[in-house]
Amino acid sequence: MDAVIEKLKHLPYENLGFAHVDHHRAIRQGFPEVVFGRGKTPEQIAAIAEKLLARAGNLLVTRTEVRAFELVQQIEPSAIFHESCGAISVIRDRTIYGKGTVAVVTAGTSDIPVAEEAALTVEAMGNELIKLFDVGVAGIHRILSQRELLQQARVVVCCAGMEGALPSVVGGLVSVPVIAVPTSIGYGASFGGVAALLGMLNSCSSNVTVVNIDNGFGAGYVASLINRG
Amino acid sequence: MDAVIEKLKHLPYENLGFAHVDHHRAIRQGFPEVVFGRGKTPEQIAAIAEKLLARAGNLLVTRTEVRAFELVQQIEPSAIFHESCGAISVIRDRTIYGKGTVAVVTAGTSDIPVAEEAALTVEAMGNELIKLFDVGVAGIHRILSQRELLQQARVVVCCAGMEGALPSVVGGLVSVPVIAVPTSIGYGASFGGVAALLGMLNSCSSNVTVVNIDNGFGAGYVASLINRG
Amino acid sequence: MDAVIEKLKHLPYENLGFAHVDHHRAIRQGFPEVVFGRGKTPEQIAAIAEKLLARAGNLLVTRTEVRAFELVQQIEPSAIFHESCGAISVIRDRTIYGKGTVAVVTAGTSDIPVAEEAALTVEAMGNELIKLFDVGVAGIHRILSQRELLQQARVVVCCAGMEGALPSVVGGLVSVPVIAVPTSIGYGASFGGVAALLGMLNSCSSNVTVVNIDNGFGAGYVASLINRG
Amino acid sequence: MDAVIEKLKHLPYENLGFAHVDHHRAIRQGFPEVVFGRGKTPEQIAAIAEKLLARAGNLLVTRTEVRAFELVQQIEPSAIFHESCGAISVIRDRTIYGKGTVAVVTAGTSDIPVAEEAALTVEAMGNELIKLFDVGVAGIHRILSQRELLQQARVVVCCAGMEGALPSVVGGLVSVPVIAVPTSIGYGASFGGVAALLGMLNSCSSNVTVVNIDNGFGAGYVASLINRG
Amino acid sequence: MDAVIEKLKHLPYENLGFAHVDHHRAIRQGFPEVVFGRGKTPEQIAAIAEKLLARAGNLLVTRTEVRAFELVQQIEPSAIFHESCGAISVIRDRTIYGKGTVAVVTAGTSDIPVAEEAALTVEAMGNELIKLFDVGVAGIHRILSQRELLQQARVVVCCAGMEGALPSVVGGLVSVPVIAVPTSIGYGASFGGVAALLGMLNSCSSNVTVVNIDNGFGAGYVASLINRG
Amino acid sequence: MDAVIEKLKHLPYENLGFAHVDHHRAIRQGFPEVVFGRGKTPEQIAAIAEKLLARAGNLLVTRTEVRAFELVQQIEPSAIFHESCGAISVIRDRTIYGKGTVAVVTAGTSDIPVAEEAALTVEAMGNELIKLFDVGVAGIHRILSQRELLQQARVVVCCAGMEGALPSVVGGLVSVPVIAVPTSIGYGASFGGVAALLGMLNSCSSNVTVVNIDNGFGAGYVASLINRG
Amino acid sequence: MDAVIEKLKHLPYENLGFAHVDHHRAIRQGFPEVVFGRGKTPEQIAAIAEKLLARAGNLLVTRTEVRAFELVQQIEPSAIFHESCGAISVIRDRTIYGKGTVAVVTAGTSDIPVAEEAALTVEAMGNELIKLFDVGVAGIHRILSQRELLQQARVVVCCAGMEGALPSVVGGLVSVPVIAVPTSIGYGASFGGVAALLGMLNSCSSNVTVVNIDNGFGAGYVASLINRG
Amino acid sequence: MDAVIEKLKHLPYENLGFAHVDHHRAIRQGFPEVVFGRGKTPEQIAAIAEKLLARAGNLLVTRTEVRAFELVQQIEPSAIFHESCGAISVIRDRTIYGKGTVAVVTAGTSDIPVAEEAALTVEAMGNELIKLFDVGVAGIHRILSQRELLQQARVVVCCAGMEGALPSVVGGLVSVPVIAVPTSIGYGASFGGVAALLGMLNSCSSNVTVVNIDNGFGAGYVASLINRG
Repeated sequence: MDAVIEKLKHLPYENLGFAHVDHHRAIRQGFPEVVFGRGKTPEQIAAIAEKLLARAGNLLVTRTEVRAFELVQQIEPSAIFHESCGAISVIRDRTIYGKGTVAVVTAGTSDIPVAEEAALTVEAMGNELIKLFDVGVAGIHRILSQRELLQQARVVVCCAGMEGALPSVVGGLVSVPVIAVPTSIGYGASFGGVAALLGMLNSCSSNVTVVNIDNGFGAGYVASLINRG
Repeated sequence: MDAVIEKLKHLPYENLGFAHVDHHRAIRQGFPEVVFGRGKTPEQIAAIAEKLLARAGNLLVTRTEVRAFELVQQIEPSAIFHESCGAISVIRDRTIYGKGTVAVVTAGTSDIPVAEEAALTVEAMGNELIKLFDVGVAGIHRILSQRELLQQARVVVCCAGMEGALPSVVGGLVSVPVIAVPTSIGYGASFGGVAALLGMLNSCSSNVTVVNIDNGFGAGYVASLINRG
Repeated sequence: MDAVIEKLKHLPYENLGFAHVDHHRAIRQGFPEVVFGRGKTPEQIAAIAEKLLARAGNLLVTRTEVRAFELVQQIEPSAIFHESCGAISVIRDRTIYGKGTVAVVTAGTSDIPVAEEAALTVEAMGNELIKLFDVGVAGIHRILSQRELLQQARVVVCCAGMEGALPSVVGGLVSVPVIAVPTSIGYGASFGGVAALLGMLNSCSSNVTVVNIDNGFGAGYVASLINRG
Repeated sequence: MDAVIEKLKHLPYENLGFAHVDHHRAIRQGFPEVVFGRGKTPEQIAAIAEKLLARAGNLLVTRTEVRAFELVQQIEPSAIFHESCGAISVIRDRTIYGKGTVAVVTAGTSDIPVAEEAALTVEAMGNELIKLFDVGVAGIHRILSQRELLQQARVVVCCAGMEGALPSVVGGLVSVPVIAVPTSIGYGASFGGVAALLGMLNSCSSNVTVVNIDNGFGAGYVASLINRG
Repeated sequence: MDAVIEKLKHLPYENLGFAHVDHHRAIRQGFPEVVFGRGKTPEQIAAIAEKLLARAGNLLVTRTEVRAFELVQQIEPSAIFHESCGAISVIRDRTIYGKGTVAVVTAGTSDIPVAEEAALTVEAMGNELIKLFDVGVAGIHRILSQRELLQQARVVVCCAGMEGALPSVVGGLVSVPVIAVPTSIGYGASFGGVAALLGMLNSCSSNVTVVNIDNGFGAGYVASLINRG
Repeated sequence: MDAVIEKLKHLPYENLGFAHVDHHRAIRQGFPEVVFGRGKTPEQIAAIAEKLLARAGNLLVTRTEVRAFELVQQIEPSAIFHESCGAISVIRDRTIYGKGTVAVVTAGTSDIPVAEEAALTVEAMGNELIKLFDVGVAGIHRILSQRELLQQARVVVCCAGMEGALPSVVGGLVSVPVIAVPTSIGYGASFGGVAALLGMLNSCSSNVTVVNIDNGFGAGYVASLINRG
Repeated sequence: MDAVIEKLKHLPYENLGFAHVDHHRAIRQGFPEVVFGRGKTPEQIAAIAEKLLARAGNLLVTRTEVRAFELVQQIEPSAIFHESCGAISVIRDRTIYGKGTVAVVTAGTSDIPVAEEAALTVEAMGNELIKLFDVGVAGIHRILSQRELLQQARVVVCCAGMEGALPSVVGGLVSVPVIAVPTSIGYGASFGGVAALLGMLNSCSSNVTVVNIDNGFGAGYVASLINRG
Repeated sequence: MDAVIEKLKHLPYENLGFAHVDHHRAIRQGFPEVVFGRGKTPEQIAAIAEKLLARAGNLLVTRTEVRAFELVQQIEPSAIFHESCGAISVIRDRTIYGKGTVAVVTAGTSDIPVAEEAALTVEAMGNELIKLFDVGVAGIHRILSQRELLQQARVVVCCAGMEGALPSVVGGLVSVPVIAVPTSIGYGASFGGVAALLGMLNSCSSNVTVVNIDNGFGAGYVASLINRG
């Protein structure tokens, strides 16, 4: 085994001391490089972004702030800052890789920042996108009236806080995978999104899987993989 | 204050040593006497039932078992045992006191025992009753197709386990109070009904209030009060 | 089913992009339009308010801040900002729709902001109101001395933090529904209102139902429905 | 320090291999020896009991079962088994050491086994005892009518499950320490006594302290210490 | 809207009183009818199964017991009982609908029953299947040595208890969606699968989504949808 | 009962609208009036303080801030602000009511603010006081070396954060009641004092009771009651 | 990387279908093979044991039952069953590999089964062992009197339930690593060992690390590694 | 015992009123004095530091801020402030006491501050150090490629947030003790490090023990003890 491990040392990544920057993905067509910004200083983000941008492809930095954006923009002027979700995007490849459409749905207006993170990811990975916002279950006619649109999607990302009931209803209306994103919207016994998370994990619709609270990026990423499959 | 308290000693209750049996309610027309059976021995239940049955009115014993029923039946042959929810009922007054109809709804088949406890209470308190079972949100057409029936109710009791989404949808379809009963149906991250409880507490429908997990009795009781109001 | 859904598209709501504004309620007599402010920008709140105020009726915006109020006031000068609970109200219809009186009760002084949200809702929905503040159970004579007043109510909203015991005592003193509102008042093992919430869910008084922590609006809303019933 | 520790080796206890049996307490007048039975085999309990009974004084074994009792009875025929709480008592010293009376109060009938463990401890430690059972807050007249009796006590042990509200009310009625014992009575969101525990920890009555769920022994023990003080 | 709802009443489902049996799915090619067995009596299961089997297609009953199987077998002799996961299957349609292969992976031997539920679902829905069992991360060479096999799959179902780390490692090795199933395997601070669930929700691999603890069926169902997509 | 309640209305308290100010205690010798400051505005605190100070006795306001102090000081120039615990005290009666000494002990330096709240209460209620700070169990010689001092106390208040082990050790060293105060000192899995709270509730020393996290006041209050007993 | 992975396939393990049996450890001197029994059938355990015993060295099966032992005994007659902790051991190599002594300590008698699992592991891995049982902190002289013995150990395993305070005290008495094992001993707010676990994680002694609740094996294993180091 | 305790009073510590400063450790070669800064004022820290620095040896103050550093620097100009983890170090003894190397590993870039606290401790206690940062399991080749380096260590400290899976993989790659440090890195269902903590406690690698969330110091301390052993 030692000999085997020896060889693994020469895989293509760069060691920045504080980070190991992979270049595997850049090789795969249409996959953006992604940096999770939280807990990294603007300087660390800029250093990683510089290495990644040296190769072809799109870049997404999530959960960061305008200071990091300013540094990245100096490296790559086409970078865009998405204030609602705190993301930086560099889109250099606009090819459509997905076979169909990805729908991103929210229960309320307050869930939109999370949905925007998902939508941004879906677009950076080369997919057609449908957005349906503020169609929560308390006014069931809102989602019902969009059923046709929903049924065009090959996969649905569904963001909801509070009781997190929307994915169950959406799951019953479509026959494709629904990726549920609990959001931290709510107060009191919502426990920062836990109520919605539990609701979604216990969904009575069989086609629902779940990602972490507020993880719009993860939902958009998996939706994109499914849409390429 | 001491003089005041002195007088309170002579209020109408009986001290059985292990229990203080009130006779306030028996005076109020159409209120059943209710004994919460859990944690009481069959003998204790029978002793309390005997005292209560000595006065006019209906009796309900919840969360008990057949052994207690057998003892109660010796005291009052008209007693009935409801196996699904472990309740004993003695219905001697069949007057209708409620002004309208109470609907009892369940999301799934497994929620029926809790709904039966609610329904039993609603009937023991003199109300017209509608039952709608297995109309959970994953097949939204089931509840939609019953909307007219639902809208005839003056109050709705809605029992659901798993993600507990049904009360939010029902709440949006009616303009009367909805009493949500989380049930302990589910597994894993349902945590014995906690997921449903949290979902209901965070309902985006404004007309929803909540009772304890599996508390069919409490929901039926409040629904009856509202229907008399 | 597709044909059915097709028709649902033409229901009366407006799509603002970030929100679907319903106009169903405005048609029903005496129901205020309500906007949950948290997570919405002042601009979003003002845009929604403008649409809603274009039709007759009262408006309530909960959990917002003075910035939103200033924008709403430009649209409707009669708007009032309620600082203790962060609500905006526009009361254009002052008809009394409720059949009796709604009592709003608090255990302590610190619970008053939540009670004010409930009271505001009760008034906006056209009800007579009784307020009883700071009558917690540690000095039981305080609530006892108000029993007559309490017993005039057709429904009671009861706000309490810390151990949340007041609804159980109130529930025993009245024979009408009690809507318990746990408040986030307390520290340490109150866990932001969870202790009060659990206490209320486990109330030994059968006429108690519960809403989310600090949800004065929801309690006031359901109390109003009951009082109209 | 080494020299100091050296001396500590010769303190009066016996090493049974699986247990270190202290004889410090036996010297102090009127303190029973106490064995916590759970997790110990009947044989281990009997072996410990034998050592302890070789010296003067009372013995209490809590949370054990009839098998252990049978072995202890062979050693000491005066031993008594208390079935409701699973305790064994050997009372050889019946002197009254307490200065006043200890009251043991329960909210419901189902809390009685825990109260019996407390009462047994209080008696084994030489105190006068008052028992008030089934005086929960939903029927506030029950506890009010006993206020005079309560106020004779120098300390109150108060056992309650469900919402655990009774200690707050009792605490407001007396000016002596109240030791609150949450019981595991309840279902659903009572979480095996956690709701009552939290309620008691957050009591708005300043004279309330709390012990573990179902810990009747601990409450009785501290009450006895206070009554001797 | 009333007219719309009126039409919804005539959708194809049968009302058994305790259950509403849908026949929508039977129309869609290759979708099995599925009955969640827990909380339903053997008689209820048999009654539902009979209705469903009256139409063409496969049937899966999950989380049930041998008693229910015996009743189902009388209706349909080809029914099979899968003891490890308590499932009944009736496979009448063996067409392959999936475009590629679904891999079902476990971390340990004890996770196999959950994996079997997933595998059974995957097969009932017409997919090619790869099983890789007992390849947990503590011996990383086990999963590494299967990388080629894993990379042939179009979607991976990954079952793990204890710390639930396997999906993160698998997610890094493949570029297709990974559906993580936390299992209730473990003890102490595994909290019946919660530790694994949280681990999976926080996976640092972007291609991981999660289903409820022990929900092999749900994972297999979504994996099948993805494989058809 | 109605007649009884009627009389209760005339008990001695004043209604300030937002608060009911009791004057029961002022009559009892040596009991301070206490105001829990959190959630009350400085103006509310000053208004309550003014009413209370109109009668003889000591006053304690806990959990407040310097703004409230400044208003109270205008009413009563002898008021003192205790910055570490945010308390205001007015001590006009310096009689010693306690029969012995109360010890206030802390595990660490960071627990001192909570201990100061307890000490302040103990002194305001007329007790002799011993303070032992920073004698946690990791250096067991520190508490052992103070054993003689500890054993002079008639009751011990023991404040500890982190693992909360000190009350168990102290409980073993003394034969009087120990009131354990968990503090919110710690990080990570201390969960704001929950670890210490649970440790204390599960203490293997029988003479330990517990109050809420950081509730120095409550501990000092009960200790004073015990010391008077 | 593909070439590297290809080689990894030929590492020494055997695939039993339901388990991958490693033979890496058998090569390392004095490491027992260990099988975690829970969730494995007796037949699976016997099959794995047979493979492992085909090579030299000791074998330990934890958390299993007598049925599995009987099958293993047929393969290896020298196998021993340890009833208190449900372990099977086969000790064929009795060499002492550890440099010093490992101490295994318990707070109470009820913690002994967990300590026995640790002790068994320590012995199977070739270490000298000291056992100190029932030396919990409520009688601090018990552990103090054993300080000399404790200080001879190169590493201490410390098992405690309830408040889990013993490791903090032991940690202060020795200057070697202390491995704390929370046990599930306790009731009520011990939450199956969670209180002890949290106490240990928050230990104020710097030399304490923690393993899972009841994980005697893990503690013994790491202690052995440290003692060899 | 009283005589014994009497002697303990004269052990070498200094009482600063708010703190008891021990001088036991200073005597033991190569152990730094350590002050836990959180909850202590800069002035308290400086006072303690002054006492400790009056004796020979290294000093470490953890979890403090630059204000405290400035005061300490006035006492000892060689003091260094480590901004990432908020620690002050005074290193006067640079002897290597450890027998081998300690490795400090992180899963991500964001875990580095915790790792730096560990590394600082490891160095202050006289050990050779290896740092491996950003080698989390989602890119398994990163840690595999460092296996040789890892295997040189006599003990590994492994810091990870989110799912906390790295220690299990590292534990499988080395045969020495692994001390796992959960970090509070993550969001949503990471619950401030709880997900990582649970993952590590449930590790399937037998050589893993755990310290509190973010407790880099504790991990470094125990690693140093093991490396000296």
